[in-house]
Amino acid sequence: MRWKWVYIEDVSRHAGEDVEVRGWLFNKRSSGKIRFLLIRDGTGVLQATIFSPEKCHPLFAQFDALTQESSLIVRGRVRQDKRAPGGYELEIADMETVQIARDYPISPKEHSTAFLMEHRHLWLRSRKQHAVLQVRAELIRAIRDFFDGRGFRLMDTPILTPSACEGTTTLFETQYFDQKAFLSQSGQLYNEATAMAFGKVYCFGPTFRAEKSKTRRHLIEFWMVEPEVAFASLEDIIELAEDLVLFILGRVLSRRRQELDILERDTKPLERIKKPFPRITYDEAVQLLKQKGSAITWGNDFGAPEETMMSEIFDLPVCVTHFPAAIKAFYMQPAPERPDVVLGVDMLASEGFGEIIGGGQRIHDLGLLEKRLKEHNLPRQAYEWYIDLRQYGSVPHAGFGLGVERTLAWLCRIKHIRETIPFPRLLYRIYP
Amino acid sequence: MRWKWVYIEDVSRHAGEDVEVRGWLFNKRSSGKIRFLLIRDGTGVLQATIFSPEKCHPLFAQFDALTQESSLIVRGRVRQDKRAPGGYELEIADMETVQIARDYPISPKEHSTAFLMEHRHLWLRSRKQHAVLQVRAELIRAIRDFFDGRGFRLMDTPILTPSACEGTTTLFETQYFDQKAFLSQSGQLYNEATAMAFGKVYCFGPTFRAEKSKTRRHLIEFWMVEPEVAFASLEDIIELAEDLVLFILGRVLSRRRQELDILERDTKPLERIKKPFPRITYDEAVQLLKQKGSAITWGNDFGAPEETMMSEIFDLPVCVTHFPAAIKAFYMQPAPERPDVVLGVDMLASEGFGEIIGGGQRIHDLGLLEKRLKEHNLPRQAYEWYIDLRQYGSVPHAGFGLGVERTLAWLCRIKHIRETIPFPRLLYRIYP
Repeated sequence: MRWKWVYIEDVSRHAGEDVEVRGWLFNKRSSGKIRFLLIRDGTGVLQATIFSPEKCHPLFAQFDALTQESSLIVRGRVRQDKRAPGGYELEIADMETVQIARDYPISPKEHSTAFLMEHRHLWLRSRKQHAVLQVRAELIRAIRDFFDGRGFRLMDTPILTPSACEGTTTLFETQYFDQKAFLSQSGQLYNEATAMAFGKVYCFGPTFRAEKSKTRRHLIEFWMVEPEVAFASLEDIIELAEDLVLFILGRVLSRRRQELDILERDTKPLERIKKPFPRITYDEAVQLLKQKGSAITWGNDFGAPEETMMSEIFDLPVCVTHFPAAIKAFYMQPAPERPDVVLGVDMLASEGFGEIIGGGQRIHDLGLLEKRLKEHNLPRQAYEWYIDLRQYGSVPHAGFGLGVERTLAWLCRIKHIRETIPFPRLLYRIYP
Repeated sequence: MRWKWVYIEDVSRHAGEDVEVRGWLFNKRSSGKIRFLLIRDGTGVLQATIFSPEKCHPLFAQFDALTQESSLIVRGRVRQDKRAPGGYELEIADMETVQIARDYPISPKEHSTAFLMEHRHLWLRSRKQHAVLQVRAELIRAIRDFFDGRGFRLMDTPILTPSACEGTTTLFETQYFDQKAFLSQSGQLYNEATAMAFGKVYCFGPTFRAEKSKTRRHLIEFWMVEPEVAFASLEDIIELAEDLVLFILGRVLSRRRQELDILERDTKPLERIKKPFPRITYDEAVQLLKQKGSAITWGNDFGAPEETMMSEIFDLPVCVTHFPAAIKAFYMQPAPERPDVVLGVDMLASEGFGEIIGGGQRIHDLGLLEKRLKEHNLPRQAYEWYIDLRQYGSVPHAGFGLGVERTLAWLCRIKHIRETIPFPRLLYRIYP
């Protein structure tokens, strides 16, 4: 066969060769005896040209009929050309129209958010949305490489669970044959079991929060990576979290610069991030916030305004530790000699992007865990297996969760989290 | 610090050095002036020894108190010793007992399946279960490396969906604020949208089937990887599926030989698998099965007995194509000039393990898709976006889904699929 099907991202390796490109019309223009087509195939955008001195060349008629997003197959020779976007262009010898697209609903003009969300399946083809999701794929790959490279074992935790991990008010419920089940909000409890079997583990999957909040930082369904390490302390997992964030940054900055450019992301604030990140206790944070004019009082959780304030004080991600026990989950290990605060950590991203990581040390003492379950009115029966972990070789252990979409919003400097996942699930929105 | 914490899998790199190992007692025995401990830390099992001419050495008393699965930290020098399992042992200089475990419920004696499933959180620590899940992590890594390496973009598809992909009888339902939502059975429909935006994509996540079947091949919640390729034909994706399976086999055979040994997996039947796999049409398969004595008639789907029979005929995985349209999903592309069969493929694993892959070409013609939706009584409104894909640059496309747990059962030659995932969800079982 003369024509080899190649993807646009590989076209530079085929200079001087005859190839076939299969894709969609992104844009077109005419200039004298030349017709220019911008073709996208999902891996890139390529300029293709039709040249003819004859006005009635059949390819010209075919060209004229092409609408935006029409699907086509073009065949021709790849030529290096510095003027072409990407440095290469295709001289079309033959062109096959697959389908003339109907009036494509998304044009360069401004559309309402509701309209774009309703057409998310098409909006994904737009340059910026495409770029964000390319960075997403890179980010996820980087996270997995990080953990796999450090000997962490991937242990998928279940979505359908009989009990709640972080309170029952924000759970999706379903009938599981003869009983109720809930959609998982975190794989952590299960991670604790697998960490005792595998030493260091991570789970990475979708999680669910049926929260009635409509903010730019909330998704109903989002992806989270959660490492858990047996014998690790708060200190250990803060370092792990720092290393993870630096690894991610390095990867995305080196491999997805083109996409960050498309998104007009100023990368300098990311490039200057170095280890160690500033660390402050909750007590210190409250002091600082008060000095800055915040009305926060000790014992309250940070909201978006406090997180923004914190990122104005530090220009690196910040680790806040030792939160009041009362505002954190039942399984958090109290600080030694200070039982009103826990060995927990939240990492707040820089540039006002708020919390991207939450974690800490878990209670490993049997008696204390039993006490906490009672205090939180959690049904002992559902937690028998979790209690067992404190009877059969219990060890101190710690872990954290990093939210993919919030991290991606920060990396790409996207205001609203709805653009960080192919098909966002938002309050009242489940279509498409 | 004199003692560096190392994992057992890395111990061989520390011969002659003083290290610290943190783990759990797997087994122990005495022999004169020596005490032997087998310690597991999740990454391996290490022999550690205490030597003393004094009968009343304090470490001996500590040793005596240790029960199975007690957690401990040992410190000492790593020494190469061919007699030790793994070739290295640790000469204990110092030992710290973290917790003496209560009577560990799982002993080398036989336990009932119900008992083991009820103690899945501890059963994971057993040698064979540990080995299976190590292979699982390797398999998943291999799948991701395969697709990432071939330029496929990971596009996570939603779990919460407004409509059913493969029929409504086996769906988990939940209240999504003011409407009903269902747990995804497949990411395919969404993959078709992202494939038009990214060319070649895959999703990889948990999927759900509320099937009331209690067989050794069914899980209620299982992981599936689903590639989708724009402009691809049935032929293209059969080749892709073959390449994927060969890649997985190569990876697992080269990197997880130790675990396959623990599982007593005879790897010869896997080693001889080469490309191309036998391909037969459904018509031919029915003929063959009838000759073998099957009572199958044209138009019926294969059951476990037929799949077993097929694997007795071929000793490689088999690709069966061109199934009757009536037994396949609404989106399947009919064969040209033979509209009663579709361009679908099922790959049956060898050794009687049955279907691990299902896929094919999707309908790309607008009119035909609309007709099929009507025939299947599917609500057009929920599928508007899916229909849109046939209006705005529709192209032939194809993809498939590979079930992780079934593939893993085959690779490890495990009879029952419940052992292929950390916390299996089975009919009536959702604990732990």
